[in-house]
Amino acid sequence: MKIRYITTAAALLIAMNPATADDSITEAEITTAQEGWCNALVEISATNAKSGQAAAKALAESVIDSAYAYQMGPVLFKPTLTVNPQTFRTTREGALAYFVGGDPAYPNDTGFALNDWTACEDDNAAIFISGNTASTMGKVHFTDSKGNVTTVDKTWQFVKDDEGQLRIVVHHSSLEHTAD
Amino acid sequence: MKIRYITTAAALLIAMNPATADDSITEAEITTAQEGWCNALVEISATNAKSGQAAAKALAESVIDSAYAYQMGPVLFKPTLTVNPQTFRTTREGALAYFVGGDPAYPNDTGFALNDWTACEDDNAAIFISGNTASTMGKVHFTDSKGNVTTVDKTWQFVKDDEGQLRIVVHHSSLEHTAD
Amino acid sequence: MKIRYITTAAALLIAMNPATADDSITEAEITTAQEGWCNALVEISATNAKSGQAAAKALAESVIDSAYAYQMGPVLFKPTLTVNPQTFRTTREGALAYFVGGDPAYPNDTGFALNDWTACEDDNAAIFISGNTASTMGKVHFTDSKGNVTTVDKTWQFVKDDEGQLRIVVHHSSLEHTAD
Amino acid sequence: MKIRYITTAAALLIAMNPATADDSITEAEITTAQEGWCNALVEISATNAKSGQAAAKALAESVIDSAYAYQMGPVLFKPTLTVNPQTFRTTREGALAYFVGGDPAYPNDTGFALNDWTACEDDNAAIFISGNTASTMGKVHFTDSKGNVTTVDKTWQFVKDDEGQLRIVVHHSSLEHTAD
Repeated sequence: MKIRYITTAAALLIAMNPATADDSITEAEITTAQEGWCNALVEISATNAKSGQAAAKALAESVIDSAYAYQMGPVLFKPTLTVNPQTFRTTREGALAYFVGGDPAYPNDTGFALNDWTACEDDNAAIFISGNTASTMGKVHFTDSKGNVTTVDKTWQFVKDDEGQLRIVVHHSSLEHTAD
Repeated sequence: MKIRYITTAAALLIAMNPATADDSITEAEITTAQEGWCNALVEISATNAKSGQAAAKALAESVIDSAYAYQMGPVLFKPTLTVNPQTFRTTREGALAYFVGGDPAYPNDTGFALNDWTACEDDNAAIFISGNTASTMGKVHFTDSKGNVTTVDKTWQFVKDDEGQLRIVVHHSSLEHTAD
Repeated sequence: MKIRYITTAAALLIAMNPATADDSITEAEITTAQEGWCNALVEISATNAKSGQAAAKALAESVIDSAYAYQMGPVLFKPTLTVNPQTFRTTREGALAYFVGGDPAYPNDTGFALNDWTACEDDNAAIFISGNTASTMGKVHFTDSKGNVTTVDKTWQFVKDDEGQLRIVVHHSSLEHTAD
Repeated sequence: MKIRYITTAAALLIAMNPATADDSITEAEITTAQEGWCNALVEISATNAKSGQAAAKALAESVIDSAYAYQMGPVLFKPTLTVNPQTFRTTREGALAYFVGGDPAYPNDTGFALNDWTACEDDNAAIFISGNTASTMGKVHFTDSKGNVTTVDKTWQFVKDDEGQLRIVVHHSSLEHTAD
């Protein structure tokens, strides 16, 4: 067995401060992504009220392109109010129709983001982080311009893209169930 | 620069067949996990009909322990029929109460798995696989002993554990929304 | 408990063919990435022989930018022949100097890729795939224009980027140890 | 579109403190795993000196079983001093032979851990964390009972198992290259 010897002093000289790369998702990044989604929804409503549906649609396209992962592949999106047989919106077109309506291919869509939302708040029940993907489940409360609040049960799964931004790959939203 | 030379013949002799470890989830594993969940639900119903709630509860405990990831931490579980303020069942106890009822801490739970289910079928709309975690979204159809079918919108996220078995870390189920 | 009923026939009609996104790395992708690295090395040697070091350097820059992950952060690169205190090349500049030399900041680097390599072959001993990251370990055999073969022990770790391409995040190469 | 209204006050009441599961690896966990490996090496040396090879071997088995991932599949292990054709130790038996020798199937192994090591120190050059897997590259300095120091270039990749413990899936160690 051949091993080479250097002095301890020399060994200490080459101690280094490691460069670190970490693509794990943090809770702070999750909060930022959720707040970004909420703020975008309110902003689309405000744009619609001020400048009309065409402007709201243009904004919604920009929001979808930056917050969802449709450019990477299908997104697992079950919006709150879609109905059979168009329940799932795995394409960008289906998501856009849901948010701002006006697409004859989706005749039941009236535009969820056009409902005069003035506030949107997330209350996470639980978070699951596994490296560069993270999932959340909780309540989201939407307030409209009359002060009415709608609450949904919402699950999101995010992935971190190469630029370090979180993108939505799963989004399941449903009205609360009520006993009867 | 010092490099050592060996003959090409010697180099070829050490070509190897690589040993491979792969913890990525396949679509076949996803299908197996989904069918396992469906079959377990039907089996709990059958056990309840034949042997009563206590036997159904014992079976449900075994199913939860093998199919969900509660032993790893909180599970993001929003069952179909839970109501506020007990919507989310991030603990094993909450999941068990939902499936078989009989827990005074969850007074609204009557036991979803006790509804005489005789068939359960998955129709995936989309699948997202990211290494050792995978998510699915789609319809699940439950048939009871009278032939009635209930359909839910369901999102699952699985992780592969150290033994190579898929476990549920996210489960969001909701009745289909209907236009009105 | 309120559940809605639809007929079994209707349920079957909505069975879907799932859209699938999968970012897991396959063995075929690993093989392609390894062969790409080998081919690039031989091509840099050929370019140097034909067109000189400047042309080889330009090609090496292109190879580094497409095959390594320096644009994402530090790369854990221990080339075969680097010496203390410049053993590790966590920056793009350090990698480029190693492959083509000519950088006064790295005076010991004579350009590994300029050694008239005419063939390069990978023999994996083992592969570890964990979702969108995969590691390999094995022998790599380099043949020069005189037919001499140099063998190194090499470990690579790849990640799959947003475009689906593998990039090197870890690269540890060392001459074979010989008993004495 | 049917949405149900609740008051803002009620919405605020159900704000929750999320339960969080996170399997991402932290730098602190990496440091702990590296120090654990170093301490185990020194301890095996001490056990050998005090109680002989059989006791050292028993300890080494325990260390391998808790620090490496052989129970999950092949490990990509290239020890510092192995020679062809037994360079790579993808099995538990090969690792044990390297650390404590005495295995006729590995005649060149004299037992790296039996060299009277009294200290072992890690100096990371760079770290790459991707969720539940993390890689490190750097120098490791071994000091023996005579005060001589041996330095190696070492790459480790860890995964976090279901119990939250880091396990080694890749280990490439090589003597420093010297110019000549």
